[in-house]
Amino acid sequence: MAMKTTRKQNYPQWYQEVVSEADMAENSVSPGCMVMKAWGYGLWERIQRVLDEKIKETGHENYYFPMFIPLSFFQKEADHVEGFAKEMAVVTHSRLVNEDGKLKPASPLEEPLIVRPTSETIIADSFAKWVNSYRDLPILLNQWANVVRWEMRPRLFLRTREFLWQEGHTVHASMQEAEQETVKMLEVYRDFSENALAMPVLVGRKPEHEKFPGAIDTYCIEAMMQDGKALQAGTSHFLGQNFAKSADIKFTNQNNELEYAYTTSWGVSTRLIGGTIMCHADDDGMVVPPHVAPYQIVFVPLIKKSEDSEKIMSYITNIQAQLKQQSAFGEKLRIKIDNRDKANVDKVWEWIRKGAPMVCEIGSRDVESNGLMVKERIFIGRPEGKKIVKADEFVASCGKRLEELQHLMFAKAQKRLQENIRTDITTPEDFAAYYANSNEWIEDDKQGKVAFVRGKWCGDTATEEILKAMKITIRCIPFDQSGTVGKCLLTGKDATMDVIYARSY
Amino acid sequence: MAMKTTRKQNYPQWYQEVVSEADMAENSVSPGCMVMKAWGYGLWERIQRVLDEKIKETGHENYYFPMFIPLSFFQKEADHVEGFAKEMAVVTHSRLVNEDGKLKPASPLEEPLIVRPTSETIIADSFAKWVNSYRDLPILLNQWANVVRWEMRPRLFLRTREFLWQEGHTVHASMQEAEQETVKMLEVYRDFSENALAMPVLVGRKPEHEKFPGAIDTYCIEAMMQDGKALQAGTSHFLGQNFAKSADIKFTNQNNELEYAYTTSWGVSTRLIGGTIMCHADDDGMVVPPHVAPYQIVFVPLIKKSEDSEKIMSYITNIQAQLKQQSAFGEKLRIKIDNRDKANVDKVWEWIRKGAPMVCEIGSRDVESNGLMVKERIFIGRPEGKKIVKADEFVASCGKRLEELQHLMFAKAQKRLQENIRTDITTPEDFAAYYANSNEWIEDDKQGKVAFVRGKWCGDTATEEILKAMKITIRCIPFDQSGTVGKCLLTGKDATMDVIYARSY
Repeated sequence: MAMKTTRKQNYPQWYQEVVSEADMAENSVSPGCMVMKAWGYGLWERIQRVLDEKIKETGHENYYFPMFIPLSFFQKEADHVEGFAKEMAVVTHSRLVNEDGKLKPASPLEEPLIVRPTSETIIADSFAKWVNSYRDLPILLNQWANVVRWEMRPRLFLRTREFLWQEGHTVHASMQEAEQETVKMLEVYRDFSENALAMPVLVGRKPEHEKFPGAIDTYCIEAMMQDGKALQAGTSHFLGQNFAKSADIKFTNQNNELEYAYTTSWGVSTRLIGGTIMCHADDDGMVVPPHVAPYQIVFVPLIKKSEDSEKIMSYITNIQAQLKQQSAFGEKLRIKIDNRDKANVDKVWEWIRKGAPMVCEIGSRDVESNGLMVKERIFIGRPEGKKIVKADEFVASCGKRLEELQHLMFAKAQKRLQENIRTDITTPEDFAAYYANSNEWIEDDKQGKVAFVRGKWCGDTATEEILKAMKITIRCIPFDQSGTVGKCLLTGKDATMDVIYARSY
Repeated sequence: MAMKTTRKQNYPQWYQEVVSEADMAENSVSPGCMVMKAWGYGLWERIQRVLDEKIKETGHENYYFPMFIPLSFFQKEADHVEGFAKEMAVVTHSRLVNEDGKLKPASPLEEPLIVRPTSETIIADSFAKWVNSYRDLPILLNQWANVVRWEMRPRLFLRTREFLWQEGHTVHASMQEAEQETVKMLEVYRDFSENALAMPVLVGRKPEHEKFPGAIDTYCIEAMMQDGKALQAGTSHFLGQNFAKSADIKFTNQNNELEYAYTTSWGVSTRLIGGTIMCHADDDGMVVPPHVAPYQIVFVPLIKKSEDSEKIMSYITNIQAQLKQQSAFGEKLRIKIDNRDKANVDKVWEWIRKGAPMVCEIGSRDVESNGLMVKERIFIGRPEGKKIVKADEFVASCGKRLEELQHLMFAKAQKRLQENIRTDITTPEDFAAYYANSNEWIEDDKQGKVAFVRGKWCGDTATEEILKAMKITIRCIPFDQSGTVGKCLLTGKDATMDVIYARSY
């Protein structure tokens, strides 16, 4: 019923199993790409719906730019191309011809086209055309799109060659306004991650060597997975005048002087689904936060004798009709009646493995007693995981209950994050010893083997090599700095900057 | 105020101007591709929202498949590759290297990848994996995606190299069920086009030489543009066992025999936006059907003295709050308050050129009289185009009025279509003479120079050449056949089949 592999046995294999058993996605014949199936794509649709509303509420409008970017555009910003050149899909021909029964590319393009790895360069070109005066500013736009980065070690949702995302791009008249925008959108991501996905995050700035290629500053939200590794869940970039200069985005300011504008960009992707899985799923499969669940309540009719069928189905349809008046998270409930011709127990376990927040079983006796059996996903396997309730009580309370379940999921993940950031490691020796000995599994492990360390960093670029050798990364320089003086955990030098060290995806 | 070019002066140039003046889209530096701007993409978002609901209501679920298809997949279905080989973007390399300061493609792929022109081949491959028994059938899925066809004469929305669409793909246990699915989805498209876009269409089957490459039968909806040309607005394909055989989609039927499944596919694209423009826009610009308008009601405050500002704005905000209780087309109203720092008259005309269904002007006097000036887009330029109404009456009636405006738009387009299908041409001579002399502009032209001819066709494949020479096409073989005998309008032979002849996009 549950899955073959537990988290403790083999976390990476467990992850693959969750994705597969929840029927969310699978590897494709197209190398390094995935097929997102109904339950996985349904989760993405919910993410899109909720986040899109927040992006619009903050004054942004959706556009759509071409996915093909002329190669020469990448010549313009040196850091940018350096960062992406190694992982670009290049279109070089525009047709196929049949040669001796074999299809071959033909009609070479005058200039090769790059399938967008990100769209700063092509959007900056439009900004340059659209912006003339300070009156044209700011421009606040977003697009939902597919992008391609030629990953060599693809993993479903976490790293696929093609993935889906949103990328926001804005252009401003002042540095200050652009910086505010960058931080504002990071806050939108934090709020979305914590409230819609129930996934707590740390917020901060990336160190120099982890910045987006071409950015002045990159801000990020970082989540903790159940194995103690960090996942970068969203980034927001202050691009300064870098892209404005390479694309010539100039405007006449209020003093009638021509100056370069300031741009930002920010994005989250289908990687959020990977994060949601690794933050919430358990040894029985996926656990979907109710706020973004494609279906929040699934009814499974338990039909033992065919003459009961009509009675049970009309009872369920009646409950469904009443539920249409109810809401959760300010939206109508999303309900599924699973009346497939399949064994009941298999259906119930299918929905548990998919992580539907509530699975309701209704048999002949429930109809007579005017009740139903409710299984709440986060409690499966525990005594409180199933209860028989009266139908009218269920209808009246289930919207609120879904919100409570969401909150419980967040609280659990928040506790894990808070309990697993060590702050008591203060010397390079202890730090090195800690990561040399730490395993990569923390959930339920009270021995104190945590994966995040909050400590000092001297900021030397040379420390990048030490980090690589230790197989750890600096996840972020948190916004909340203590201001104390201590020893850099990598070099032992005096340092004031607090950073978050961790293993990561 | 209005546009430079009228429809009669130069229809194609008028079309470009509408797109540009309504700020819907523009040509991109990426050759043959477009940038969809907020108003154009906003219309697409509305189209997606409404159509997606209908697709789901008919039992389909959204998936997402990779956009890269291995070249060898196109080797499998001979007709299919024949139809698409001439317009395929081919990815051949996976990185760029810097050679003497110039970026060049590097790391050639083992097998080139095709950027999907359509996804039958790669989805059929998944179907083959997923389908084992009749119990697995039907599978009903859809995806929203970008696709690429290497058009040599691109036009905004109508023919761009990259475009956005939805493509439905289904697999069934019986021929009959697959055929029913094909026709059912055509009906979804007809309903959507007529009710959401107010664009009447003819429904029917394509002649053999106009079929989708690889299909047994292609069904279509065909709309009439204001210049009398036809636009194929959506297609639905019965693929028989063609793709099942090339991809090996087999299942065990109820008699425990292994047989090939039957598949369908169907799609509509951003071309619908081009159709909506050419069906409804006028010499003042775009006219957006209220059902799919990104904003249905736009308020322009007429602030002459700055001390009036607060009074007027709070009056508008108050009306807006009341409108939140109102609905149209079963949804909440979509409202915009345009308080940009810009001349009032420019703002009003901007929204007229964009085609917002209602533009409401509110000045100091309106606040005192508790009224507002409503401009209804479809009546602009006529006396009934503007009227002063009481605020409470406006609030109470505007939802219903938007539905009426939608209906009026449909009725007008429906009348044009009905009045401009000639059925009185019965000989090849008259037919040839008619198209040799017909101009391409019919609106308001009561001389009877129509662009569609309903007449007989003998069905000979050789007639394709005659059609090409005359620069006309057979749009469809309508479902409603008269069954009478007459002369084929191309060959003069006896024929019973009624078809629709037209010039087309």
